[in-house]
Amino acid sequence: MPGEQGSDSKIIDGRALAKKIESEVHSKVQMLKDQHNITPGLSTIVVGDDPASKMYVKLKHKACDRVGIIAEDHFLSEDTTQEEVIELIQNLNKRDDVHGILVQLPLPEHINEQKVMMEIDPSKDADGFHPLNMGKLLIGNEELVPCTPRGIMTALEEYNVDIQGKDVVVVGHSNVVGKPMATMFLNRNATVSVSHVYTQNLNRYTINADILIVATGVKHLIKPDMVKEGVVIVDAGISKEEDKVYGDVDFDNVIKKASLITPVPGGVGPMTIATLMQHVLKVAQNKV
Amino acid sequence: MPGEQGSDSKIIDGRALAKKIESEVHSKVQMLKDQHNITPGLSTIVVGDDPASKMYVKLKHKACDRVGIIAEDHFLSEDTTQEEVIELIQNLNKRDDVHGILVQLPLPEHINEQKVMMEIDPSKDADGFHPLNMGKLLIGNEELVPCTPRGIMTALEEYNVDIQGKDVVVVGHSNVVGKPMATMFLNRNATVSVSHVYTQNLNRYTINADILIVATGVKHLIKPDMVKEGVVIVDAGISKEEDKVYGDVDFDNVIKKASLITPVPGGVGPMTIATLMQHVLKVAQNKV
Repeated sequence: MPGEQGSDSKIIDGRALAKKIESEVHSKVQMLKDQHNITPGLSTIVVGDDPASKMYVKLKHKACDRVGIIAEDHFLSEDTTQEEVIELIQNLNKRDDVHGILVQLPLPEHINEQKVMMEIDPSKDADGFHPLNMGKLLIGNEELVPCTPRGIMTALEEYNVDIQGKDVVVVGHSNVVGKPMATMFLNRNATVSVSHVYTQNLNRYTINADILIVATGVKHLIKPDMVKEGVVIVDAGISKEEDKVYGDVDFDNVIKKASLITPVPGGVGPMTIATLMQHVLKVAQNKV
Repeated sequence: MPGEQGSDSKIIDGRALAKKIESEVHSKVQMLKDQHNITPGLSTIVVGDDPASKMYVKLKHKACDRVGIIAEDHFLSEDTTQEEVIELIQNLNKRDDVHGILVQLPLPEHINEQKVMMEIDPSKDADGFHPLNMGKLLIGNEELVPCTPRGIMTALEEYNVDIQGKDVVVVGHSNVVGKPMATMFLNRNATVSVSHVYTQNLNRYTINADILIVATGVKHLIKPDMVKEGVVIVDAGISKEEDKVYGDVDFDNVIKKASLITPVPGGVGPMTIATLMQHVLKVAQNKV
């Protein structure tokens, strides 16, 4: 995809890339069925009635349908106890037809998220949030890692973005994006800075970035005067105002200085879901 | 300790601090013996004849003697198999009198370090290198974490160094110091940059650091023109030349600009060992 000319050549097309990846996953799922009689399966757990959670899970199930993964949903009521969630996970851990287990966050307040995540068999941890998988990531052994940063890395690889020795700035230090993303860049020998809401002088960091990853949920935080010419920008932020979706980057203005940039929507989102599909396939392949 | 005046008031005295911590550990070990009849125990494993490994383990055993922890050594010959090391670890995992298990790195080439580390019961992982403990660290749940970065954090806390919102630069991105150290600063809401041998322009990072942590093993890498007035510097590097020990910081010149600085030797080293003692005590306390 790199090297294209024309007005859209700067845009990292997350939808097209996700489609390509899903098509690869689809072929491999078919091979697994044909050659080993294994159909990859993903079980999702949602506790309570959060509409965003339900929407995200629905998108993941649709992707499963597209690639031939069997998706099974567990919608539990808001008053489900922690013990009941853990019991369900333990049953899913044992089932040979369940390759990936995904607990959609957030969980209701009476449930301890970390305790629940710890119960997932790390080898079935499709989301990559289990501390064992996070720890392997930290020591450079990336097996099942969080889907959003992994999807971003795939996009950069696909567009032949050099990483070693580059100055990378990650804005946001969450457990699901910022910290694992920074770790993945360190594992690839980039110089990495992580800034966030406590950072005193954000511009001083962003202005020097060769690669800028933003994941804050603050609408249009990144303006054109904050970046240098030629920067590669990945926008993993999302915020809503009156049913319109915004990224963390003032896209229309910043694109003029960027050499590559992801749009919102249609950038990181589809890549996250495609990565989840890769993970479920990977777990199923490991069973052969 | 902060606020002292005079010529030595800039120096973070790792030996004095370690002595204070060990004295606290000693009292708590005594209480554990008196009140619960538990004596904390550390088992160390060294494979092969690396003189540095033997020296490090000896220092750790001496510290155990000082604080009342029972230390048990397992010196295994160079040709010990991976399976034999794992069998030993599994036996130590089962023993109630062994609270901490420490495998001194590096291991001989025919042994897979990661496989061996994975066998240590994470709750007895005195060194904090088990991926499960590393992963908990990454998500902000610091239980047993690597001793050198933990010891550095203790020293900064002891000298009342503010961390939140500060610009921190870590030079070196190893699994034992750089990456866990950066993670600990992120967990405390510092803005963190990690540079290393692949970094194009090291000065651009170091010159803006409020807190600079160096762990490269490159003698006198950090010169006075690379830091700003008032910087807090921690030197976790060590290199030897003709039996003389050097840090990564050109101490005699850099101290003029620093507000606080650790010497080599007598800075980070003693703090690492004192932290190990805290960890073994912590595991034993968890058994109550």
